Amino acid sequence: MNTNTGKVTLLSAGPGDLDLLTLKAAKALAAADVVLLDDLANAGIVTLAPQARVIRVGKRGGCRSTPQAFIERLMRRYALKGLHVVRVKGGEALLFGRAGEELAALRGAGIAVEIINGISSGFAAAAGLGISLTHRRHCHGVSFVTAHTEDHGEPDWAALAATRTTLAIYMGMRRIASIASALLASLPADTPAAVVQWAGGVDERRLVTRLDRLATDATSAGFASPAVILVGAAIGESVERVWVEGEPMQGEPLAHEVIAHAA
Amino acid sequence: MNTNTGKVTLLSAGPGDLDLLTLKAAKALAAADVVLLDDLANAGIVTLAPQARVIRVGKRGGCRSTPQAFIERLMRRYALKGLHVVRVKGGEALLFGRAGEELAALRGAGIAVEIINGISSGFAAAAGLGISLTHRRHCHGVSFVTAHTEDHGEPDWAALAATRTTLAIYMGMRRIASIASALLASLPADTPAAVVQWAGGVDERRLVTRLDRLATDATSAGFASPAVILVGAAIGESVERVWVEGEPMQGEPLAHEVIAHAA
Repeated sequence: MNTNTGKVTLLSAGPGDLDLLTLKAAKALAAADVVLLDDLANAGIVTLAPQARVIRVGKRGGCRSTPQAFIERLMRRYALKGLHVVRVKGGEALLFGRAGEELAALRGAGIAVEIINGISSGFAAAAGLGISLTHRRHCHGVSFVTAHTEDHGEPDWAALAATRTTLAIYMGMRRIASIASALLASLPADTPAAVVQWAGGVDERRLVTRLDRLATDATSAGFASPAVILVGAAIGESVERVWVEGEPMQGEPLAHEVIAHAA
Repeated sequence: MNTNTGKVTLLSAGPGDLDLLTLKAAKALAAADVVLLDDLANAGIVTLAPQARVIRVGKRGGCRSTPQAFIERLMRRYALKGLHVVRVKGGEALLFGRAGEELAALRGAGIAVEIINGISSGFAAAAGLGISLTHRRHCHGVSFVTAHTEDHGEPDWAALAATRTTLAIYMGMRRIASIASALLASLPADTPAAVVQWAGGVDERRLVTRLDRLATDATSAGFASPAVILVGAAIGESVERVWVEGEPMQGEPLAHEVIAHAA
C-alpha cells in the first residue's frame, strides 16, 4: 500500500441520537478531513467533525440522489490524496446499506479501510419498546431482513416465520400490507407486531398492535419510512401493548395507540 | 412511582473495546452510584464510573456464579434506596442475556428503567472480518440465534438454513460439531463459515473456513467461548478467506488460518 494514501473509515452513525455514537466514532469524526454524509444520519453529526469538509451523499429509499458509483469515486479520490475520509452511514454499516460493495471498491484501489460499528435501528426500536428482542420464553433469536426488493429480492416470509425468531423488518413500510399478508399465511393473527419510526431519534414514534391489524393500524396512524417493523411473540412483552382484544378497530386509531417518544 | 426511588440503567457494554461504548453509556457510567458488572464486559469499564460502588455479578456459560434472582434483588434494593444503578451487560443488552426478565422484575417493583443500546459481538465479528453481514448479492438479512439450549431450547436449524440469511450463532462453541452437522443437512458443504473469538476485544481471533470443516478447524485451532459462529455466503466476501479448496486439511491447522487481531 502507498504510504502516502489516506484511509477511509466506514462509520456507523447509529439511529439518530448523537449520544448513541460510539466513543470510537466520535474520535474518528474529530480526526476526519472529509465527511461523506448519509441522508439517514443525523445532520448534527458534523458538529463532531469541525475540521472536515462535509459532502452530503444521501440516498433515501428508492430515490437515489447520489449514485453509489459516485460515492465510491469520491471516497477513493480523497483517500488517494492522503486524506482521512469518514463515510458516515446511518444505523450499523454492516447491516444493509452498501458496505459490501464499498469495502470491495476501496480494497480494489489499495485503500486502507477501518470499520466502526454502531447501533442499528432495530435495537433502538426494542429499547424504545422496553423489550428484549430475544426473550427466552418466546424465541431462539431475531432475524433482521430487508424488504427492499430492488437490492435484495423478496425474502422468503414463510421460511422466516418458520424459524420462530423475532422478525425485524427494515425498509418495509411501502409494502407493509403485502408483508403482513405473507406472514399471516404462517403466523397467528394475534402475533404481536410493532412499528417504530425514527427509532432512537427525538421524533421516535411507536405503535404496538397485532399482525392482522399491523398494516391498517400503521397506515391510519400515518407511520412511514424510515421505520422498523417488528413481529413476534417477544414483542408482546412491551408494556406499551395497547391493542384492544376482540373486535378490529374501526375508523381512526385511538390516540393512545401512538406512543410519543419517552424522553 | 415513588419520587425517592432511584433508577436502573440496563447498559450494553459492547464487545470489549471500551471505545465501542456509546457516548450515552459513558455518561451513565459517570453518573452511576452502583455498578453491577457482568463477566463478559471489559472489567476496565469501572474506570468510567469513578464514583460508583462496583459489584461483580458475572455468570459465564452454564456456570452461574450469581443467580439471576439475586442480581434482580440487588438492583431493586439499591434503586429503592434512591440510587442510580447501572447494570452493565456484555454486548447488546436486548440480544440474549436476561434483559426481558430484568425489565419485568424492575417494572414490577415500580422502578424506572433506562435501556442503553450497544454493539453486539456479531457486528464486531463482521467488522473484524471486514464484511457486511447482509451483502445484497448473497442474502436478505441476518439471523442472530443462540445455541444455549438451557435458556432457549434448540433452534430449528433447517428452518434457519431455509431463510438463506446469514447466521450469527451465539454461545455455540460447546456444540459446534452438532450445529455444523445439523446445518449441513440443509446447506452446501462449501458454505463459507467463520468463528470469531473475543470479537472486538484486544484478544480477538478469527478463523474463516467452510461449513464442512468448521468444527474440525475451530477445535484444532483452539477456538472456544466466548465466540460467534458465522455461516453463509456473505461470509465468503472476507478477504481473510484462507481455507484451501479441495482436500480437507490434515493434522495441525495452517498457521495463517488463525488470524490475529488487526490493531
